[in-house]
Amino acid sequence: MTASITVSVQALQEQMAAIYRGWGMAEEAIARTVEIMLEADVMGIDSHGVTMFPTYETLQKDGRLTMNPQVRVVKETPVMAVIDGDGGLGHYPSSIAMDMAIEKAKKVGMAAVTVRHSNHYGAAGVYALRAARHGLIGISTSSVWNPSVVPTRSAEPMFGTNPFAFAAPTKRNEPFLFDMATSTVAIGKLKLAWLAGKPVPEGWALDAAGQPVTDAEVAMNSRMLTPLGGTSLMGSHKGYGLGAMVEVLSTMLAGATYAPLRPAEQKHFDIGHFFFALDPHCFREKDGFEDDLDAMIDRLHAATPVDPAQPVLVPGDPEHQRRAQRETEGVPIAGPMVEMLAGIAQRAGVPFTLTQLAA
Amino acid sequence: MTASITVSVQALQEQMAAIYRGWGMAEEAIARTVEIMLEADVMGIDSHGVTMFPTYETLQKDGRLTMNPQVRVVKETPVMAVIDGDGGLGHYPSSIAMDMAIEKAKKVGMAAVTVRHSNHYGAAGVYALRAARHGLIGISTSSVWNPSVVPTRSAEPMFGTNPFAFAAPTKRNEPFLFDMATSTVAIGKLKLAWLAGKPVPEGWALDAAGQPVTDAEVAMNSRMLTPLGGTSLMGSHKGYGLGAMVEVLSTMLAGATYAPLRPAEQKHFDIGHFFFALDPHCFREKDGFEDDLDAMIDRLHAATPVDPAQPVLVPGDPEHQRRAQRETEGVPIAGPMVEMLAGIAQRAGVPFTLTQLAA
Repeated sequence: MTASITVSVQALQEQMAAIYRGWGMAEEAIARTVEIMLEADVMGIDSHGVTMFPTYETLQKDGRLTMNPQVRVVKETPVMAVIDGDGGLGHYPSSIAMDMAIEKAKKVGMAAVTVRHSNHYGAAGVYALRAARHGLIGISTSSVWNPSVVPTRSAEPMFGTNPFAFAAPTKRNEPFLFDMATSTVAIGKLKLAWLAGKPVPEGWALDAAGQPVTDAEVAMNSRMLTPLGGTSLMGSHKGYGLGAMVEVLSTMLAGATYAPLRPAEQKHFDIGHFFFALDPHCFREKDGFEDDLDAMIDRLHAATPVDPAQPVLVPGDPEHQRRAQRETEGVPIAGPMVEMLAGIAQRAGVPFTLTQLAA
Repeated sequence: MTASITVSVQALQEQMAAIYRGWGMAEEAIARTVEIMLEADVMGIDSHGVTMFPTYETLQKDGRLTMNPQVRVVKETPVMAVIDGDGGLGHYPSSIAMDMAIEKAKKVGMAAVTVRHSNHYGAAGVYALRAARHGLIGISTSSVWNPSVVPTRSAEPMFGTNPFAFAAPTKRNEPFLFDMATSTVAIGKLKLAWLAGKPVPEGWALDAAGQPVTDAEVAMNSRMLTPLGGTSLMGSHKGYGLGAMVEVLSTMLAGATYAPLRPAEQKHFDIGHFFFALDPHCFREKDGFEDDLDAMIDRLHAATPVDPAQPVLVPGDPEHQRRAQRETEGVPIAGPMVEMLAGIAQRAGVPFTLTQLAA
């Protein structure tokens, strides 16, 4: 069995770029794609960074990914734009989209940019945070290629885990960063329970008939997740509504394909995304917004915790803490993933260069 | 005991207007306030319509409400505005704010308007729906005067039930309308369980020490609600993040007062609200957005239900069904509320005119 390793951020960046180069991606697309993926790895959003390569390789082999997409701005005004991703990975057009929203918002106060004909775009929070680093409020949402989330009362999945992210700038603290899937948990958590031989809590997942299930293997195989709230009694209609809202913004507004209505013969998933940036300085006097947000964050950090060993966190705290750690100590990669990445590099015809970071 | 009655929409409108007139409110403010409140009553959002009068009367007597506020636009650009509510009820400045956002969005594509120095503004969904009736996507959020929602890990409440509403226009179906509190349940549900002598489900509420509680009386007295998700295991950090996001948009962006930091001597609550409108026709060709949203709504309605007697609902269905019923059959008012309203009318020096609608 291959051992787990911890690699430097730069080594990971170079390995990811090399694989994309081997796949024939153009340099500008590589630079933007790797930047977005690396942000997820550095912030500890491990499910949305380098671990996505096996999935991307499969999509590519299945002819579902354009490796050299002609990303085009198909419509543009001072407050909005529509981008066509031409069937490539989502990170490249999405990074352009968020940058356009940021630039327009700085000029006129706010802007929204949608992306269609896209694919998986990584972690939603990375885009929202990009706006906050520019002193703006940022929002990012995305649809997902396969439905897995089951609306309240339904026995069929109708939405993906449809992520929603919101970030806002601060002065003294790290930016406010809220990034959620609109399901109760991610599919990955069902797999972890199964691997650990444990049941899943009631309210996380359903069986193929839409009934609550606690057997982790059944849950993993049916791939039927509950919306946030879990059960009707606990407000699952709210998680369902949030997932539907994300679909409206990401799919309907962008003019992408709603997965349950996608024709079987359509090879490209045609996922859509939504990006929004707003300049708080239009609304508040200089620093007023940041000062008030810092005061709220400080008050939350000072809240009396139930357990003194577990202080109250503010949205973004885990990601910012992980970044501080990984930028100096490196990014851990589990043994099986090291092995998969070595195989992917080999098949892409590029060297596998990841090695344990010297202590 | 006073009997429950069902009253016509017009009779309810006239009674509400009469009470406000008795309290000295100006006619334009009355028209807008009553219109917003009546929408809640007609859509079955009973906790946010006429039943709010006892609370408003208390606020007024306590000197916490300006009855003739000088509502002013303090800042304005083509895509945004900031409104000062001058300490009056929230409906009046909020209805102006949403109308401004709608008008601007029709001209330039999107707009956001915030309101500060405000109070309770009724049902968030009413404002979002207003945008959808104009063919626009609408969003509305509000902060709340007293903290009741306890962040994950905290033993102190740090947010109100901080509502979030989103609406979008359709062609064949009623508009998509999603309106949620970011808590698992409203305080009112704890009271209903207590009145019925039933325990509350674990995950709805906490005791004064921040521990889960099922005793309805303890829950009602501590007024400590969980964020959507209920428990850490079920994702309460997501509901907490949503509530915090609503606070950022409603309070920090508007320049209102964050309740946990409000000075004890400050009589006016200084609540803030956020309104946003976006024109989907900037992004999509004619009817493209509405057609695709209608197709999603149809697909959701056609989803196989777990129980055939309980078909899958789309966000907004309960409200639209209730409206169809109440516009013809009238609005029911419970006996104790009839009695309270009669007392409020008397103290306001106006006639009490609500009577049972003829069958």
